[in-house]
Amino acid sequence: MRRRDFLRAGAATALATPALAAPAIAQSAPEIKWRMTSSFSKTMETMYGTSQIVCRYIAEATDNKFLIHPYQAGELAPSRQALDAVSSGSVDCAYTPTNFYVAKDPTLGFGTGIPFGLSSRQQQSWWTFGGGAEIVNSALKRLNVVGIPAGLTGAQMGAWFKKEISSVDDLKGLRWRISGLGGPVLARVGVAPQDIPHIDVYAALEHSTIDAAEFICPHDDEKLGLPKVAKYNYHPCWWESGGMVHLVVNLERWNALPKSYQAIVARACDAASLWMLAKYDAVNAPALKRLTAAGAVLKPFPQAVMEAFYRATNEHHAEQAAKDAHFKKALDSVNAFRKEQLSWLQIAEHSIDNFMVSTRGRA
Amino acid sequence: MRRRDFLRAGAATALATPALAAPAIAQSAPEIKWRMTSSFSKTMETMYGTSQIVCRYIAEATDNKFLIHPYQAGELAPSRQALDAVSSGSVDCAYTPTNFYVAKDPTLGFGTGIPFGLSSRQQQSWWTFGGGAEIVNSALKRLNVVGIPAGLTGAQMGAWFKKEISSVDDLKGLRWRISGLGGPVLARVGVAPQDIPHIDVYAALEHSTIDAAEFICPHDDEKLGLPKVAKYNYHPCWWESGGMVHLVVNLERWNALPKSYQAIVARACDAASLWMLAKYDAVNAPALKRLTAAGAVLKPFPQAVMEAFYRATNEHHAEQAAKDAHFKKALDSVNAFRKEQLSWLQIAEHSIDNFMVSTRGRA
Repeated sequence: MRRRDFLRAGAATALATPALAAPAIAQSAPEIKWRMTSSFSKTMETMYGTSQIVCRYIAEATDNKFLIHPYQAGELAPSRQALDAVSSGSVDCAYTPTNFYVAKDPTLGFGTGIPFGLSSRQQQSWWTFGGGAEIVNSALKRLNVVGIPAGLTGAQMGAWFKKEISSVDDLKGLRWRISGLGGPVLARVGVAPQDIPHIDVYAALEHSTIDAAEFICPHDDEKLGLPKVAKYNYHPCWWESGGMVHLVVNLERWNALPKSYQAIVARACDAASLWMLAKYDAVNAPALKRLTAAGAVLKPFPQAVMEAFYRATNEHHAEQAAKDAHFKKALDSVNAFRKEQLSWLQIAEHSIDNFMVSTRGRA
Repeated sequence: MRRRDFLRAGAATALATPALAAPAIAQSAPEIKWRMTSSFSKTMETMYGTSQIVCRYIAEATDNKFLIHPYQAGELAPSRQALDAVSSGSVDCAYTPTNFYVAKDPTLGFGTGIPFGLSSRQQQSWWTFGGGAEIVNSALKRLNVVGIPAGLTGAQMGAWFKKEISSVDDLKGLRWRISGLGGPVLARVGVAPQDIPHIDVYAALEHSTIDAAEFICPHDDEKLGLPKVAKYNYHPCWWESGGMVHLVVNLERWNALPKSYQAIVARACDAASLWMLAKYDAVNAPALKRLTAAGAVLKPFPQAVMEAFYRATNEHHAEQAAKDAHFKKALDSVNAFRKEQLSWLQIAEHSIDNFMVSTRGRA
């Protein structure tokens, strides 16, 4: 409820001004056209497709009175500068993961999900009922934007490697493409993290200028052609937990919307979160089958390697928290929430999942 | 996309008639008041709360032009007759699980979730992208209603027992309160299933007229007082998989809505699904802690007992499919979808969940 109260507080401010000038009917359903810059290209059909879904839902609910036109990365702003374009007001809104901007403010990593953090489902619960909306939107407000969750990836795959990883020693000096808060964690276990744009990943692996790359899920990885240039696909993905993506809106534009349009945008985003997760599950399962049929080898990270990642993450988080009070507040909040959620997960969802996974291969 | 196409087909039919009679502005945003009958009482604050959320979201998005008033179970119709009231048109819509009506049509069980079926997340994916919407709405159409998913419980708890369950023999003759498709499965392993309303469960356990009862989750179970009258709380819940709840709308009323209102209802329902799951996670985790502090003993069903439930489920499903072509079509669809999803679950969400659960109790 807290997040909605937050949004509603914004709406109240917004309505104060235009209400005096225009007749009631015009205020409640004005014709508005916005531009949305995406951090993704059209080829990433689920990620980009979700931004199209947000726009379509808003158009449908307003009888095409409120139209948002999505543009792929690079058309209005580069992928990693989508937030900046919204912040300055040169673009009305963006579809982007907030962890693309951890260099500006590490707390923005919590909007998407931190290493060994919350699952997509836990992240959604933390956002709405655990204080997440306030924490991340406090950080976003300093950049003159408001963030509304509008996409969940679920657990992603681990990385693609050209060679097998059998021990922590195999990580030393490995040139591994990764984005967000995972990079500095990997550096602590000897990896040389590389943050390169996704369109360059295939060529970099092909020419061995990198040794490994994380991307998203079987469906996207297959489109990028990763299995052709790196045989080993490791799991689980631990560096981004659930992968929440946001609609980020310029604060003045948001506050100027009629209250009903704010509600319509919020619900379109909620619906898009549900849509993306369902869509990824629907497309990833068959893509996984095709990948393995085409020769990809699925492997779990060895336990010792997972433990090394986990230790390095805790060290990095503690160090970051010691020098950044906002980050500390966010970390304490996530850790407290996670602790309770894991007790619940273990006996509920995880417990039935365990049995269901055990039925695989039976008649 | 398929579900939306289905809904849109309905909308096109609907718009044909009123468009000829009224001016454009009146059609697109008419003042409408509906009544919603819930299968739940107000004391079930998350389940009933979600129906209130649906109504609030619709009001907010339409500037209070489309108002739906929710009524608790018994005010307009009894809990298990909510669908009938909508079917006849005496009430406009209902908030109800479709598996309350398996006696009318066993295929309606698939709308909520069948024993050893899909998780909430898989159920949502199956509904939207796996053919679920068409299958369940075909069954609902025969009852003159359309169903829109508007709530997900996630994995629920197993049942509360007065005595420990150590073997399949301990199930013989056990009077166990259960609803939906789980009852006939339990009967196959010797249980005497009892389908009694949830308000009577506490007294029945207290006076030992039943020996066990499934209900929902720690938060609801605590409110019902179950731990006071049955000490042992078993997991996992296998008889209802994910627990999807629907907004069920009278078909003529749905078709008469303007297209934009249909879109607003659909998005309010999507948002409510996300809200309920997040809310249940937020409230169940602390409730679980309180339950165990108050003396509830959490126990997993023994493996041999789970295997007996699983075998009985497969036998019951096969028998049902042999005599009901609609049920068979639904079962084949769910089984095919589940098979692929389990491969994906195992290496993605389940894999990181495994590690995260292993971190419980660490510093």
